[in-house]
Amino acid sequence: MEKPHPDTPGITVNCAVITVSDTRTPETDKSGLLIQQLLIDANYTVETYAIIPDEPAQIQAQLALLSQNSNLDAVIFNGGTGIAPRDTTYDAIEKLLEKTLPGFGEIFRYLSYQEIGSRAIASRAIAGVYQNQLIFSLPGSSNAVRLGMEKLILPELTHLVSQVRK
Amino acid sequence: MEKPHPDTPGITVNCAVITVSDTRTPETDKSGLLIQQLLIDANYTVETYAIIPDEPAQIQAQLALLSQNSNLDAVIFNGGTGIAPRDTTYDAIEKLLEKTLPGFGEIFRYLSYQEIGSRAIASRAIAGVYQNQLIFSLPGSSNAVRLGMEKLILPELTHLVSQVRK
Amino acid sequence: MEKPHPDTPGITVNCAVITVSDTRTPETDKSGLLIQQLLIDANYTVETYAIIPDEPAQIQAQLALLSQNSNLDAVIFNGGTGIAPRDTTYDAIEKLLEKTLPGFGEIFRYLSYQEIGSRAIASRAIAGVYQNQLIFSLPGSSNAVRLGMEKLILPELTHLVSQVRK
Amino acid sequence: MEKPHPDTPGITVNCAVITVSDTRTPETDKSGLLIQQLLIDANYTVETYAIIPDEPAQIQAQLALLSQNSNLDAVIFNGGTGIAPRDTTYDAIEKLLEKTLPGFGEIFRYLSYQEIGSRAIASRAIAGVYQNQLIFSLPGSSNAVRLGMEKLILPELTHLVSQVRK
Amino acid sequence: MEKPHPDTPGITVNCAVITVSDTRTPETDKSGLLIQQLLIDANYTVETYAIIPDEPAQIQAQLALLSQNSNLDAVIFNGGTGIAPRDTTYDAIEKLLEKTLPGFGEIFRYLSYQEIGSRAIASRAIAGVYQNQLIFSLPGSSNAVRLGMEKLILPELTHLVSQVRK
Amino acid sequence: MEKPHPDTPGITVNCAVITVSDTRTPETDKSGLLIQQLLIDANYTVETYAIIPDEPAQIQAQLALLSQNSNLDAVIFNGGTGIAPRDTTYDAIEKLLEKTLPGFGEIFRYLSYQEIGSRAIASRAIAGVYQNQLIFSLPGSSNAVRLGMEKLILPELTHLVSQVRK
Repeated sequence: MEKPHPDTPGITVNCAVITVSDTRTPETDKSGLLIQQLLIDANYTVETYAIIPDEPAQIQAQLALLSQNSNLDAVIFNGGTGIAPRDTTYDAIEKLLEKTLPGFGEIFRYLSYQEIGSRAIASRAIAGVYQNQLIFSLPGSSNAVRLGMEKLILPELTHLVSQVRK
Repeated sequence: MEKPHPDTPGITVNCAVITVSDTRTPETDKSGLLIQQLLIDANYTVETYAIIPDEPAQIQAQLALLSQNSNLDAVIFNGGTGIAPRDTTYDAIEKLLEKTLPGFGEIFRYLSYQEIGSRAIASRAIAGVYQNQLIFSLPGSSNAVRLGMEKLILPELTHLVSQVRK
Repeated sequence: MEKPHPDTPGITVNCAVITVSDTRTPETDKSGLLIQQLLIDANYTVETYAIIPDEPAQIQAQLALLSQNSNLDAVIFNGGTGIAPRDTTYDAIEKLLEKTLPGFGEIFRYLSYQEIGSRAIASRAIAGVYQNQLIFSLPGSSNAVRLGMEKLILPELTHLVSQVRK
Repeated sequence: MEKPHPDTPGITVNCAVITVSDTRTPETDKSGLLIQQLLIDANYTVETYAIIPDEPAQIQAQLALLSQNSNLDAVIFNGGTGIAPRDTTYDAIEKLLEKTLPGFGEIFRYLSYQEIGSRAIASRAIAGVYQNQLIFSLPGSSNAVRLGMEKLILPELTHLVSQVRK
Repeated sequence: MEKPHPDTPGITVNCAVITVSDTRTPETDKSGLLIQQLLIDANYTVETYAIIPDEPAQIQAQLALLSQNSNLDAVIFNGGTGIAPRDTTYDAIEKLLEKTLPGFGEIFRYLSYQEIGSRAIASRAIAGVYQNQLIFSLPGSSNAVRLGMEKLILPELTHLVSQVRK
Repeated sequence: MEKPHPDTPGITVNCAVITVSDTRTPETDKSGLLIQQLLIDANYTVETYAIIPDEPAQIQAQLALLSQNSNLDAVIFNGGTGIAPRDTTYDAIEKLLEKTLPGFGEIFRYLSYQEIGSRAIASRAIAGVYQNQLIFSLPGSSNAVRLGMEKLILPELTHLVSQVRK
């Protein structure tokens, strides 16, 4: 599980997977499991996995705590990206990001638009850097997770981590 | 005019249409009229219509006043989205939004780019939530209004309102 | 070099080209030279050219100083748009912009995605208005510069400047 | 009521008095009445008076609407300056101010500390400029109103208005 | 230790004490101990005590984690309030506060000025509300802690908590 | 002129003095001269002196340019701190400060209140850190300059610089 990524020999990328949901459990959290599986299949390492409720302070606490783990390179959230009152992932993360990566949300929604049409505007995916770690936030559906992981995060994670580590 | 939207039986969506312009009148405001007509044809309800000048305080006053109407679900602005000195709709609205919906502006400009090419970068469409109401801001041209309404707002309004109401 | 742009008779557009790089020199700065050449070929005027290091204060100083030149209409930066710790162009510029032009970065990355795929999310191009001047920031590679100039800046510069001057 | 202020002959200062309260009525609003009386006794003009509930959007709507009255020089709010969940005057106003006047709140609380001791830290008085009008926000108690008016607003209003009008 | 505060019968106020320091240990943390002792002597309850390093993410993590404890009413930080590069308490807390209480820092520095003169300007004490908890940040010296606790926090804590709980 | 400050042997503090004024010249700039004289008399070094107009971009350019001089420890602005439309020093500086030093403005206005009464609320003095340099902004009157220099800046400059340099 800790073999270096084939495209960038010598770089190990350690990830945390955080599901933001009031209802999912480890047994029912298909999207959280899918992210982990996709990371491992691509030779990335999953260091941590947790499910936390849709509370801004919980999300900010996760972000801040995980940043204390100097082995960790990237945190991938899923869930809570809509605009219902309980959907606060975007807002909680945006407030803490030190650098934003606007292209991640933009291209994610562009690709999503190709798949599902106008419903794509409802998802507030976001990415950026906090305390030298890459932060990604994806919607909670399996389709959205698969799209964001396969088209954007998996192919770019090693490159982005190598940039942030410079 | 108040029949529930066919796709989401039982949900009535009440809208305000606000034209931001220093020169248009109710007689010449084709875009304002077009938005109303498109809403009604799609079984949404138009509760209010007004033309206000390109003044940030007027725009903020409209937003704040309309939010006091608890029957109102969505406010659709048109006009004032460019970058001329008098174009302040984007800035006045962005300052008040409690949640932003970045995908609306992004996908609107992507679609606009397919239609009109590079000129698409000049329009600052924006959407988000203020006081439990959905706020949309479109450029003032009839083509832009038709694009934003038909491709994004009309198909998604019921869904987005049902999210915000949760 | 100061002939009016063919599409908008009577409007001369004066530009500054600023390369943000710790290592390039006027001899090796292919992208800076390319931007100048493309501007001149399109009948725009290049008033100033400089290479500055990847320091937020240097970027902010350039922006503020150039804004004192009332003959200048637009400033085109290249370089420093990634997310490595030394990449601060986006953050330094964003802090000073009085109006943002979100569509520039969005459509640039959309076009870039068509060319290079997912790597497009790594570039933080940005544009907006500071003190009545148009500010653009492009990545430092020649391909990115050519894309941004040919597809977006060259065709829209005269129109955008005429808007900002209103 | 419209005689010029004795210290600055020729300058008439027109004020709005807004009470922010969920419970007060014109009959019970002693503080709102006191502000008006103190303004009139000092030869300032009261143009408008209203009681609005402790709702951020109501406060922002008042601010934005009053700014459209070009005869109005200053708006004096009272109430809603604490930190209970319903106390949002400070936050709603701060978001809209184009210039802040930090000394008003500071010196108000310093003077309040001399009168009532440590309880002074609980009040979030604030002042600044919005759309060329001076905005002041005072706590809702008669003592606080008397302190803020007699020690700060009444002696400085003409001077501050003459500055903002320049 | 959990007797209600004499001045407000029936209100128990539970506090966390957090020392921000790269060097102090529980044995040498006189200021942290002093805050706890002063709280207990005034019939407040100390629920949690920790020493964390001068890292913004650690401070933000503490704040976010403690907010998940619904028994906790107030968090009192000490240390890290200067302007040395490692002093980030003010900045880390300010970014997360949902409401600020400007009078706390102001009156603290006013009182500090009476005691130590101009050196008072160097300390960035701050207070506010995050997730329904009161947050206070004091300098790390015993004198500053004693001043802030005895003159401001101890006399006002019960009142402020009762406001925030409303 | 470069002797170390008596209170902190071995620390030389190099300052820039910037007067913000549309009308003053080196011949009539009493306040700019006074600041320089007071610095020199207190064994601080004046490296640079300039008069710049009341333009936000000029102020931001000065700040950014001076930050490139690694010999410089502190920048002292005077002028432009009121709330007239041309008074933008506070706003231009605040936007760029990486750390604010709230106590400087607060205690300055408290001391000013002791001298001149309520007029003290009209001055927007501010201080903080930008790119490892201390930034102070004082009103333009000789009395204000003398107050701010003698009571706050001169006694604290060496200490504050030693903190920022850590």
